Amino acid sequence: MASYVADLLSDTLTRPTDGMREAMARADVGDDVFGEDPTVRALEERVAGMLGHEAALFTPTGSMANQLGLRLHVPPGQELVSDRLAHVVRAELGAAAVFSGITSRTWSAPRGLLDPAEAMSLVTTGVGPYQVETALLVVENTHNFGGGTVQPLPAIREVRAATREVGVAMHLDGARLWNAHVASGVSLENYGREFDTVSVCLSKGLGAPVGSVLVGSAERMAEARIWRKRYGGGMRQVGVLAAAGTYALDHHVERLAEDHARAKRFAEACAEVAPAVVDTTTVETNIVVLDVGAVGLSSAAFVEGLAAHRVRAYAVGPAAVRLVWHLDVDDAGTDAAVTAAREVLTAR
Amino acid sequence: MASYVADLLSDTLTRPTDGMREAMARADVGDDVFGEDPTVRALEERVAGMLGHEAALFTPTGSMANQLGLRLHVPPGQELVSDRLAHVVRAELGAAAVFSGITSRTWSAPRGLLDPAEAMSLVTTGVGPYQVETALLVVENTHNFGGGTVQPLPAIREVRAATREVGVAMHLDGARLWNAHVASGVSLENYGREFDTVSVCLSKGLGAPVGSVLVGSAERMAEARIWRKRYGGGMRQVGVLAAAGTYALDHHVERLAEDHARAKRFAEACAEVAPAVVDTTTVETNIVVLDVGAVGLSSAAFVEGLAAHRVRAYAVGPAAVRLVWHLDVDDAGTDAAVTAAREVLTAR
Amino acid sequence: MASYVADLLSDTLTRPTDGMREAMARADVGDDVFGEDPTVRALEERVAGMLGHEAALFTPTGSMANQLGLRLHVPPGQELVSDRLAHVVRAELGAAAVFSGITSRTWSAPRGLLDPAEAMSLVTTGVGPYQVETALLVVENTHNFGGGTVQPLPAIREVRAATREVGVAMHLDGARLWNAHVASGVSLENYGREFDTVSVCLSKGLGAPVGSVLVGSAERMAEARIWRKRYGGGMRQVGVLAAAGTYALDHHVERLAEDHARAKRFAEACAEVAPAVVDTTTVETNIVVLDVGAVGLSSAAFVEGLAAHRVRAYAVGPAAVRLVWHLDVDDAGTDAAVTAAREVLTAR
Amino acid sequence: MASYVADLLSDTLTRPTDGMREAMARADVGDDVFGEDPTVRALEERVAGMLGHEAALFTPTGSMANQLGLRLHVPPGQELVSDRLAHVVRAELGAAAVFSGITSRTWSAPRGLLDPAEAMSLVTTGVGPYQVETALLVVENTHNFGGGTVQPLPAIREVRAATREVGVAMHLDGARLWNAHVASGVSLENYGREFDTVSVCLSKGLGAPVGSVLVGSAERMAEARIWRKRYGGGMRQVGVLAAAGTYALDHHVERLAEDHARAKRFAEACAEVAPAVVDTTTVETNIVVLDVGAVGLSSAAFVEGLAAHRVRAYAVGPAAVRLVWHLDVDDAGTDAAVTAAREVLTAR
Repeated sequence: MASYVADLLSDTLTRPTDGMREAMARADVGDDVFGEDPTVRALEERVAGMLGHEAALFTPTGSMANQLGLRLHVPPGQELVSDRLAHVVRAELGAAAVFSGITSRTWSAPRGLLDPAEAMSLVTTGVGPYQVETALLVVENTHNFGGGTVQPLPAIREVRAATREVGVAMHLDGARLWNAHVASGVSLENYGREFDTVSVCLSKGLGAPVGSVLVGSAERMAEARIWRKRYGGGMRQVGVLAAAGTYALDHHVERLAEDHARAKRFAEACAEVAPAVVDTTTVETNIVVLDVGAVGLSSAAFVEGLAAHRVRAYAVGPAAVRLVWHLDVDDAGTDAAVTAAREVLTAR
Repeated sequence: MASYVADLLSDTLTRPTDGMREAMARADVGDDVFGEDPTVRALEERVAGMLGHEAALFTPTGSMANQLGLRLHVPPGQELVSDRLAHVVRAELGAAAVFSGITSRTWSAPRGLLDPAEAMSLVTTGVGPYQVETALLVVENTHNFGGGTVQPLPAIREVRAATREVGVAMHLDGARLWNAHVASGVSLENYGREFDTVSVCLSKGLGAPVGSVLVGSAERMAEARIWRKRYGGGMRQVGVLAAAGTYALDHHVERLAEDHARAKRFAEACAEVAPAVVDTTTVETNIVVLDVGAVGLSSAAFVEGLAAHRVRAYAVGPAAVRLVWHLDVDDAGTDAAVTAAREVLTAR
Repeated sequence: MASYVADLLSDTLTRPTDGMREAMARADVGDDVFGEDPTVRALEERVAGMLGHEAALFTPTGSMANQLGLRLHVPPGQELVSDRLAHVVRAELGAAAVFSGITSRTWSAPRGLLDPAEAMSLVTTGVGPYQVETALLVVENTHNFGGGTVQPLPAIREVRAATREVGVAMHLDGARLWNAHVASGVSLENYGREFDTVSVCLSKGLGAPVGSVLVGSAERMAEARIWRKRYGGGMRQVGVLAAAGTYALDHHVERLAEDHARAKRFAEACAEVAPAVVDTTTVETNIVVLDVGAVGLSSAAFVEGLAAHRVRAYAVGPAAVRLVWHLDVDDAGTDAAVTAAREVLTAR
Repeated sequence: MASYVADLLSDTLTRPTDGMREAMARADVGDDVFGEDPTVRALEERVAGMLGHEAALFTPTGSMANQLGLRLHVPPGQELVSDRLAHVVRAELGAAAVFSGITSRTWSAPRGLLDPAEAMSLVTTGVGPYQVETALLVVENTHNFGGGTVQPLPAIREVRAATREVGVAMHLDGARLWNAHVASGVSLENYGREFDTVSVCLSKGLGAPVGSVLVGSAERMAEARIWRKRYGGGMRQVGVLAAAGTYALDHHVERLAEDHARAKRFAEACAEVAPAVVDTTTVETNIVVLDVGAVGLSSAAFVEGLAAHRVRAYAVGPAAVRLVWHLDVDDAGTDAAVTAAREVLTAR
């Protein structure tokens, strides 16, 4: 932790700033299970509004926000479809199947980029009572395992039009939608209103310690509120956490551009010495994935090499390493990461 | 039913023959929940032996045999991978998710044909406690929605070698493995021993009224027996059904070649008048899928056209029609189907 | 099996009679998944009518019939209440929780006898979104683990009136409702119409090899039909089994009085030599439970003692033994059981 | 909220004190999903030690702590037994069934008081593969819906000895174990070590805004950690919450005696004017349940009557009202509650 000059393991690592801590200490709170916490209610209203939806629900994690969203749309035994590297099928421990009885099928998507035709090729409806009906299509924006990929609004709109025609719902896993918004200039509302439900995360790029928000219709959020309690997510004086989220919305959205610029700078510096490890045009937000295999390195060796320089990265595959920029990595940290990476990449 | 001259809706339609009914009437029976039915025990031993496995379990349906097989290998929250049109993800109503908490991802496979590299591209293991681990790979042989496709043994063996290396189990949905065996000449045992569990169906091509069999290790079958009871599949004097299955094994396996020949003859006759509707080289077993859209017909129109000739077929998509040969369709029925199909295909 | 002169282990042991086998061999059949089996449809209509309900569904087992019935009434996370020895909470392997997410609470009921006040003391409704709502009350008639107890119609009606007032549904586990009907003279319809769903079994006292029937409204049965497929209970040419059930309804209902008389005669014979082991007034149908502990025997020792006389019984507790009369136990078998039991009870 | 002079709705209402807020603002934090939050790790070690267990896990709520505890002991389809008003079967929305497939049976317990013989009468083991096996017995201490009842240590120990003999695990729902400890003088460790797992809550009487802790063996806690992520409870910089819990352990345990004294004083004051509404000997901790029906009032009328005096209470049944003392109710608030209650009780 304190021992790294640049900890690029994940943007979940961010620690609350002094200003954020002060906001938490001053927060007006109540018992949110009884709907009596003013700070969380204000935050929920604000986020719903930002995304063009009617209502919202605060959750302890992004996984719970997604899982509540999925189950609102898919009855047991029906399916969701997503790309094969989506967080909901890869990194939520199969919760949609375990807790909601949702079966899933997946399409292939290089970099996680949404291809409307490929996505719609899986959508199956009107096939009678004895075959599985597609009830939900999930889009992740930005796409985490794809490398921070921003989904183009036209592709989203094309899929929305097609799913609407056959009565299939759409959920947006927007854990890093803030990054997509800042990188693309598309408003949060323009993204949000193409979906039936959207989850956004306060504790990744935005830097709050805990919390995500799910948005949707008032009726769906009322149902999600009951299920949140069943999942064990009905916390009490949530205002202490919501205050951090509110502070983050006030102070940490636009600054994501700095993370993006640093990630890009890092990628370009790597490409200068080892062009094969990264296509810098694919670095759209705060995530860089290096194919260190292209220069004959294992991901483990590269991660270890960086660690010797007190830089932390994450091996996402045998030859792929992910580095994520966030609130706690500044220019000096980025410089250190550049120096370390170039040395390891050229050391052979 | 009686009103069709050729009912090609499905090979699940077969009715027990007189010989089979007599075998059922004579069957020695006991209470199978207590393990006391001699006829079902003999059948289980026989099928286990045919497939090169240690033990077997009779089930009321192929879906239950598959579902019991899947849950033996995949703990809640881990995944199975299969092709996107596999019966286990398309036609078992999401039971693997609903009852066993199994999440799933799918690869793309034209005609359902197993492509080892594509299949293995989804297999993910050793990724730590917070990502989904692949526990099972499922192969379907022959492939139903793929059009009766026979899976090549070398492809199966290549996938087996690769999955073994990373500790991933394999289940064979062999509802129509009898057809694959007869069409390819590969022994049932050679197919069977590449898998950890295999399901086979007695009530499709083989013509028994009810029943499937799951095979695997004795330990796994003991566990499956308890779960079969939990699913509500612990029937009592099962020998009346097992006797039909035994009769089918004695009399109805090799004759599947007749179904295959009739299906081929039908496909060729269609191709003569409308070459675009079917590639006859893909008709390997008892299933024909016609792309009637290629001649400007909807599947509904084609099915209706056949029905006017008292021939029944199944619209599997907006432009695709499936026809299945089985015990209750003879040469005369096939002639009638040919005449009807050619007339409808050329009527425009 | 053949080796017992009286096999009183369970009434599930009955083997089909010659007449029943002939009916099975002659049965007109079709594919029931497509709703095309005339014999099963006729049986379903007949049983629905007998119980005063709109529609019915054939299932492979009584457990599946019960489980389908339960899930029709109870959404995930709500509860059923029953007595603590009910088959649905004791002998269906927790399927209501595992597959349907139904939680349960239980009341105490000596001999399984329904006490309206005690039952209603658990029913809880209108308690807001964060407490469990009672959705279903289950009654078992006759009560298996209670010793074949017949539930009095007035008690049933009192509970029905009370549950109706608070909107709680009622399911009857009527696996042995035939016995209750014959013993009490209450019509099946009078029992049936007090409940929202009823399951009855064809393979216990009635002697069919396989099968149960669930009855309820047409809408509920349509939903149950889809779930039956998901459970793996969607069998094909079910007419071969339904024909046995139909035969049983024609020939084996009224004769249950013989089983009851034999059970009573046995109990009285035991009480003559060992009055403490059984209160003969509680032997109402075909089940006798002996408290052999009252004469210093373990249940294991008593069961073993009977076995030496080629009489089979079932130890249901450390000091309790159950004996069940059925189609395959005649007067001679009963005489043998009496002789054996009296000898073992007085041997010390 | 601010509008009540005494808000006795629940002890979940407590708001963090200034000292607690300062501790939260100063907390050293890290990403707890990666096990890198020093404050939460220290709290987990401390609580494990207090309860005599090896390891601990912080959770967002008491429900999640309980649910994780239950599933560690009970495989799908086996059962837990508890009293019929236990929080785990009444107030966790059936989560044990929905998410873990746990079936349950319940014994009757006036005031929630543990009666070893009654509890053990439900425990059933060694009954073969086709009946439900009891895997877990749950005790709640203090008992919430029972009125803050303290479970006697001898009764707990008697049940522990009996369950150990038959291999049944025990879980303690100790959301208010702090109150039991303070009221009885029994050490937390003496309570804790009679159980395989224990949950305790930081956000009820102790006054932390969010959080509970589950304790058990290191192996079980490692498994619970993975399931916590699957439930959506894997939060990030948890130290901000754990700091509040640590502060509460330092400052808010012994002061629970004040809550108990105030609750007792209130009960006695009510009994003076209406002896039938409460047996003051049953007021052992911070909860008072008044049987206002005994003086001809509905619970709704009584609650409304108090509200007119700006005192809030909770109708737990048609004639029963619960009042709970906590950190935010002082002597003046108690005086106000006394005045209000006496006036309403005697107003008729």
